[in-house]
Amino acid sequence: MNEHPTTTIGLLHPGAMGSAVGASAVAAGAQVLWVSEDRSDASRARAEAAGLQDAHWLNGLVNQSHIILSICPPDAAVEVAESVRMLGYERIYVDCNAISPATARQVGEIVEHIGADFVDGGIIGGPPSADRPGATRLYLSGAEAPRVARYLKGGPLDVVVLDAPAGAASALKMAYAAWTKGTSALLAAIEALAIHEGVMDALEQEWAKSQPRLKAQSDGLGGSAAKAWRWVGEMEEIAATFEAAGLPGGFHEASAEVFRRLARFKDDPNAPGGPELAKHLLPG
Amino acid sequence: MNEHPTTTIGLLHPGAMGSAVGASAVAAGAQVLWVSEDRSDASRARAEAAGLQDAHWLNGLVNQSHIILSICPPDAAVEVAESVRMLGYERIYVDCNAISPATARQVGEIVEHIGADFVDGGIIGGPPSADRPGATRLYLSGAEAPRVARYLKGGPLDVVVLDAPAGAASALKMAYAAWTKGTSALLAAIEALAIHEGVMDALEQEWAKSQPRLKAQSDGLGGSAAKAWRWVGEMEEIAATFEAAGLPGGFHEASAEVFRRLARFKDDPNAPGGPELAKHLLPG
Repeated sequence: MNEHPTTTIGLLHPGAMGSAVGASAVAAGAQVLWVSEDRSDASRARAEAAGLQDAHWLNGLVNQSHIILSICPPDAAVEVAESVRMLGYERIYVDCNAISPATARQVGEIVEHIGADFVDGGIIGGPPSADRPGATRLYLSGAEAPRVARYLKGGPLDVVVLDAPAGAASALKMAYAAWTKGTSALLAAIEALAIHEGVMDALEQEWAKSQPRLKAQSDGLGGSAAKAWRWVGEMEEIAATFEAAGLPGGFHEASAEVFRRLARFKDDPNAPGGPELAKHLLPG
Repeated sequence: MNEHPTTTIGLLHPGAMGSAVGASAVAAGAQVLWVSEDRSDASRARAEAAGLQDAHWLNGLVNQSHIILSICPPDAAVEVAESVRMLGYERIYVDCNAISPATARQVGEIVEHIGADFVDGGIIGGPPSADRPGATRLYLSGAEAPRVARYLKGGPLDVVVLDAPAGAASALKMAYAAWTKGTSALLAAIEALAIHEGVMDALEQEWAKSQPRLKAQSDGLGGSAAKAWRWVGEMEEIAATFEAAGLPGGFHEASAEVFRRLARFKDDPNAPGGPELAKHLLPG
């Protein structure tokens, strides 16, 4: 439990990741608010299960929160910041989304314009869970990062402060996901190619001899397909991060296209893995 | 030893891979010719060490060979076929290069135009060696593939016939290298990004926790840097193969750019691995 039992944290919004981070903050001793207006029944069920309290309207959450955590699909990060800006929030705003350092700095300018303190965040790992404490890390950077870390520490979410300005936590997230999700997209695309060329069986036999880990990795892609729709924007943010550094963005522009073609599996827990998934990447 | 002791194989040209494949064919009982005209002292040294016989001129090799093996950088595959076409070769021509199925079919048309039989090949693994018999595979496809396999089997090179038309062996090679070399390029680019953003140490610490294999993989990239110049063309062939299948070519267009920036390490056995290599990817 942290030493600030009356800390109130506003969470925008309780998706699978957001609700789990909220539950971790509750476990750490904070009061965590969410906003039910315009949210789905699934969001309500997740928020209630996580022990979050309904502020009903965004205005109420903004007025009561010492810290706002933005946890949403990357495409919505700027919009969420804009909605808070319009309500004149002046305390700490933490963007935890999978966005480029440049987009993070844009979010920072939006909330600093109204007098809020901006902290940059990046989450590595799945939704934190009491069953696997410390397996998910929230990286934070920016001047107020140590304060945010003190409020959030104590739950299953591991909180790590980078001694670096805002942008660093997002950069770390981009670099990390560039590998994990980029290689998933590449692997699926390679299998689609092998199917198209009629050499999938031969490729599997060669992999069995010389790349023995790839079969399991390929089979596991089915578990990711339900999230592919959400990764399109993340891959675009990674591509932009590479290009801004003078590095080729093509790996993740291609990854975005792969995940776009898998968007049909949104929230489908029974998506196939391996070549059964990969064949959906081939045009009509 | 194969059952055709008088088989003569023409090898164009004895680079690191070609000379080792030639040595394997010699071990299998064939006479293997090469052409010293216009080749370097390094080629001569490799050819002599591999037990190849110098035909001096391309015309002599073409006249004497029952089978010609083309083993060269992918950019030179068409040119080598053209040089043979001009001399009117009429027996079996095997392209073993890392080229797209479309380029392989183009090579096939060139040599079939003069009455030769075309066999498509793809090599997976490093140069074959008596120390590691069977660790490198030559895949073959096309009508005459079984005959070529009979002539080449018996040395350290494993020879596998695909029951598929010309193009299949090249497609398998493209799909295989798309992973091995594409992930090498991606890993180096990610490290360059992390260096640019000042988060390389944080990334290494996160990888140590959740991606423990990546450090060794990254350190090992130094051993590949000397070959990066040769992989630019291979990555371009892979990108073209993806695009021809209606799949995004960006992974390997980006990989080609990464290897292009590492071309300065050509034939340098002391290239660094890890972030020391990756920093060379960043613009000026």
